[in-house]
Amino acid sequence: MASIPLLLMGCGGVGRQLLHHVISCRPLHSQQGVRLRVVGVCDSKSMVAIPDVLTSEFRDDFLLQLCEIKSNGSSFLDLTKTGLALIDCSASSETIGLLSQVINLDGCVVLANKKPLTSPLEYYDKLVSQPRRLRHESTVGAGLPVIATINRMLSSGDPINRIIGSLSGTLGYVMSEVEGGRPFSEVVTSAKKLGFTEPDPRDDLGGMDVARKALILARLLGHRIELDSIKVESLYPEKMGPANIPLDEFLANGLPLLDEAIQKRIESAASNGNVLRYVCLIEESRCEVGLQEVSKDSALGRLQGSDNVVEIYSRCYSKQPLVIQGAGAGNDTTAVGVLADILDIQDMFRHSPSAA
Amino acid sequence: MASIPLLLMGCGGVGRQLLHHVISCRPLHSQQGVRLRVVGVCDSKSMVAIPDVLTSEFRDDFLLQLCEIKSNGSSFLDLTKTGLALIDCSASSETIGLLSQVINLDGCVVLANKKPLTSPLEYYDKLVSQPRRLRHESTVGAGLPVIATINRMLSSGDPINRIIGSLSGTLGYVMSEVEGGRPFSEVVTSAKKLGFTEPDPRDDLGGMDVARKALILARLLGHRIELDSIKVESLYPEKMGPANIPLDEFLANGLPLLDEAIQKRIESAASNGNVLRYVCLIEESRCEVGLQEVSKDSALGRLQGSDNVVEIYSRCYSKQPLVIQGAGAGNDTTAVGVLADILDIQDMFRHSPSAA
Repeated sequence: MASIPLLLMGCGGVGRQLLHHVISCRPLHSQQGVRLRVVGVCDSKSMVAIPDVLTSEFRDDFLLQLCEIKSNGSSFLDLTKTGLALIDCSASSETIGLLSQVINLDGCVVLANKKPLTSPLEYYDKLVSQPRRLRHESTVGAGLPVIATINRMLSSGDPINRIIGSLSGTLGYVMSEVEGGRPFSEVVTSAKKLGFTEPDPRDDLGGMDVARKALILARLLGHRIELDSIKVESLYPEKMGPANIPLDEFLANGLPLLDEAIQKRIESAASNGNVLRYVCLIEESRCEVGLQEVSKDSALGRLQGSDNVVEIYSRCYSKQPLVIQGAGAGNDTTAVGVLADILDIQDMFRHSPSAA
Repeated sequence: MASIPLLLMGCGGVGRQLLHHVISCRPLHSQQGVRLRVVGVCDSKSMVAIPDVLTSEFRDDFLLQLCEIKSNGSSFLDLTKTGLALIDCSASSETIGLLSQVINLDGCVVLANKKPLTSPLEYYDKLVSQPRRLRHESTVGAGLPVIATINRMLSSGDPINRIIGSLSGTLGYVMSEVEGGRPFSEVVTSAKKLGFTEPDPRDDLGGMDVARKALILARLLGHRIELDSIKVESLYPEKMGPANIPLDEFLANGLPLLDEAIQKRIESAASNGNVLRYVCLIEESRCEVGLQEVSKDSALGRLQGSDNVVEIYSRCYSKQPLVIQGAGAGNDTTAVGVLADILDIQDMFRHSPSAA
């Protein structure tokens, strides 16, 4: 039986959903010889941990209440004596010191949080110094097996030379709707009403979330680059940014001014037999985020709705890419991706080859 | 440093390709803290193992020659004292006893061979009794991450209720070409000339290879079924089977008789706005292999050429499936899938959490 002490950081939507899954999967995990032992929960301000972190665990019913509770800190580093999995479902860039410390102490780290992996290389390198002790599937494409697949390919010597993907459900939806003839401003406004965008849609349209995902993928492929070296195309000009005009004015007067240019680019793509997609593109010496023309017969070109899609080209997948497609956002799918990562490190918690 | 002693069964195309990859990836694995130590190679008749299997390993140059050599047997079960990974790239159903023995002795098993997993449940159950010690990605879709993804989803409590896929590159190619208007007989004949089929194309057209893959997937989902309980649609009638007419006669006089019926079914599908695909379909109480109408807007319906595609529906992927697509055959992609599996079990060979 592998007993994995878990410390959960981040008690928002994903963190709470994850706890629900941990509890509801107990019978399943028991069959698999794994016990997930939640020993602490923390957010940016505080932490609650059980007094005896080495042998005890929170009761399931108490655990669910815990997420809501603010309490005083407690030391947990003792845990690393027997191994610890630190689960970061927060959206903070301030967890990286703690994460690196856990890795240093031979603990394991599972991330849904993109920030630590998009921090400066100096910090990133420390975090990934023990690659088998780090899992972060949900940082790109939520539960879609993008990272796991790339890692499988790389570790088996199938070098990847190109990744192109639509990694924003919002922008995927917007671009496929606009292609059907609806004005850009109308599509963005209705996407906001449907809850498909951030409260301020400029957070999606600016492309920085996609850029973070692109950086995570590029670094996996060995690119030694920083976030600010990625070429990011924003779908609105800087003068319409949050620093210059308020949201209401952007929606009412700014957005419609963008319709014509987008329409022209779509027509230009169509005249080449292509469609326009907002993609991340990673090649040997290139990492870009923005609008690109792609063949309408490719998986990317045929994309409809808010699915994510990633095309991976390698030695084995040279003419036709390996394609992974599906829903790439949402608390539930993200939490499922995190839980799959936790189960994936279980062998670290079996202390000898014959302990199973 | 995790040192993994490997015993390789099967010295055909995949086995040899795998050895080449093992050798060419040595610098990469060394960076990852893994040493793959090949201690034995065997085929159905014989085995060559180094005298001191516990500490030594074959030299790389000798290893490549070994595949061609027939030699007398040697005992290798001593190996399991320190852990052993048995790699089965053969196509034999007779390895299952040995594989189960290795699992029993706390060794690990990696399969490209489908036969052990499609044997009667009595044997299957023994083989999968230690699921963490078994990997078999390449048994379905070669290097495509189909099994890894299904296992991730199941272990994280995202129940799968439907899998539908095109798992034969040959039949995928045939059905997409026939859709374009070419007669079935002409497509099969040219596919044979292009080397896309088995020497006797009836081995593909009969559907048994797809049925084996369907059984592997169905059993992963918990179906307690045997190979002969799967409904398999053959694309030729029994009277044209290898037991009744020779290959030449089948190609010259049998095949053309099948054109009209296939054409009619394609037209019938088109009149419903669908296309015809040769699929495996697994649902809660159903496991079938054969022609099915699918929406032409689905990933399956849009499939062209010889790619495999798998659509997975679950709680998280309910309206739109999780889709995995790409080349699903070939020695190289299969060997890469096997090597990724081997790297995936490396944590079993680190004897304590702090041994990394």
